[in-house]
Amino acid sequence: MNEFELIHRLTRALPGNESLVTGAGDDCAVIDLGLPDRLVLFKADAVVEGIHFTPEAPPEKIGHKALARCLSDIAAMGGVPNSALVTLALPRHFDSGRIETIYAGMSALARRYEVAIAGGETVLNPERLLISVALLGTVARDRCILRAGARAGDAIFVTGELGGSLAGRHLEFEPRVAEGRWLAEHFSIHAMIDLSDGLAGDLRHLLKAGHVGAELLASAIPISRSARVASKAETSAKPPLLAALTDGEDFELLFTVASRDAVPLLDAWKKQFPKLKLSCIGKVTAGEGVTIRDKQGVRPLTAHGYVHFS
Amino acid sequence: MNEFELIHRLTRALPGNESLVTGAGDDCAVIDLGLPDRLVLFKADAVVEGIHFTPEAPPEKIGHKALARCLSDIAAMGGVPNSALVTLALPRHFDSGRIETIYAGMSALARRYEVAIAGGETVLNPERLLISVALLGTVARDRCILRAGARAGDAIFVTGELGGSLAGRHLEFEPRVAEGRWLAEHFSIHAMIDLSDGLAGDLRHLLKAGHVGAELLASAIPISRSARVASKAETSAKPPLLAALTDGEDFELLFTVASRDAVPLLDAWKKQFPKLKLSCIGKVTAGEGVTIRDKQGVRPLTAHGYVHFS
Repeated sequence: MNEFELIHRLTRALPGNESLVTGAGDDCAVIDLGLPDRLVLFKADAVVEGIHFTPEAPPEKIGHKALARCLSDIAAMGGVPNSALVTLALPRHFDSGRIETIYAGMSALARRYEVAIAGGETVLNPERLLISVALLGTVARDRCILRAGARAGDAIFVTGELGGSLAGRHLEFEPRVAEGRWLAEHFSIHAMIDLSDGLAGDLRHLLKAGHVGAELLASAIPISRSARVASKAETSAKPPLLAALTDGEDFELLFTVASRDAVPLLDAWKKQFPKLKLSCIGKVTAGEGVTIRDKQGVRPLTAHGYVHFS
Repeated sequence: MNEFELIHRLTRALPGNESLVTGAGDDCAVIDLGLPDRLVLFKADAVVEGIHFTPEAPPEKIGHKALARCLSDIAAMGGVPNSALVTLALPRHFDSGRIETIYAGMSALARRYEVAIAGGETVLNPERLLISVALLGTVARDRCILRAGARAGDAIFVTGELGGSLAGRHLEFEPRVAEGRWLAEHFSIHAMIDLSDGLAGDLRHLLKAGHVGAELLASAIPISRSARVASKAETSAKPPLLAALTDGEDFELLFTVASRDAVPLLDAWKKQFPKLKLSCIGKVTAGEGVTIRDKQGVRPLTAHGYVHFS
């Protein structure tokens, strides 16, 4: 049983309550605590030594990544992050200076987004360091963007450039909090997700939630420089387009809007975020399944997202 | 450097923000999200295989414990739990049936307290299972009970019976959510903490937060049956009183009230919770330090709480 199958089994019949708006299956849980104009966003995630970072990774970047992953999920709902709790699972022998530097990296990012680090716990995890972060945020009641909601005919957008994140960007990416919030406030975004498993996999999650399909344009997929460099340097590396489609940990935003909003959105984006690329990579289709169009024609996109436990 | 020293260093200068009411150092973080009459409580904790439970522990009890620990912290603020997120850090080879049963144990407890399990993540932690739980709750704005607030002359109370929890109670304890909420609603509780490190250690945390001391009455400390049984069965076991003072994982509530409220509280408690013992175990003193009175007189209490990383 792989990760996705297990999650499916575990989340079939979870307890809910009156205040739960959206539970397992979206980027964040959405909770109605009775705030007049806002909903509460709730997210938890963890990074593990040897899995999400190597023992040699600069400690401040480990801390940055641990918090940035959760911030990215808040961004994907159009939300504003508020407070984080940090659970440190420490190996039996740890370097306290390294842990302090991890905390410094996390704190620097938290300060930039006015996120309070509101506490946490330490436990023993004898073999390796694990950092679990829980994050609380809020979103305007009528501006919360779910994964579900994509409609046939929608334009599909992605921020930034994709692929090759493991060469370094995965440790220092900037979560798209300002961008997600701006999108939610200024446009009718139908569906949004942040890219953690890779474009092909996360697009499928978004499309599945909306019971729709998509046609992508190969030439429109924004390919990162590191994906291009890797494909030239190593003969075993993926071709750049495949890397952009299937590499994980991009932490960019993928979203859909009505096609009539596509051009106004691109124009407004260029003024608001002149340094960050925004690409229209295709359109939502009524039938399920994903196809990709290139010079040779239209083919089914069979590339799968990275499965953590494969 | 032990756990407490590291936590002290890490929490010296954490980022805050406008909405943070109480950060690191209490049972839960307290956050003001702008609800007219309530504050938000936020807690995260983790249990680790081989540390907080053995591989042989019944899986439903592992799930119960993972959530119950966080519920106990909400209880210690006088709060009402609302929603939980569960991060499963799974070893490379795991028994999916066991994981499902762990979830079933957690879900059963969640349903009893109307807590939604709002989602979570799975990650790989190759050597052992770790379960991290984040919990959101709320508390009436004027009824949130902190660790700080004990005053000289206060009566000190503890719920239940202490010591010997590792014989089994640590896996199946009932978090004192109803009791904590009732106390907050009906009495002016000056300070409260839940017992996780052991009475002697947690009492020190509570007293330190209030810059006060305490005098305990040895004969008033409620000693659990399992602590008495253990001390008879094994010659190396702690004497029962020492076990009640220093064993961890009792998850009972320790709190102080003005001495004039002590008798009315005991009377009302007996009617409200006839099956759960409530003991007045001593009084808060103006000077710092803890003493214990028994037949031989008054002696300083030197027994320390259990230090996780000693």
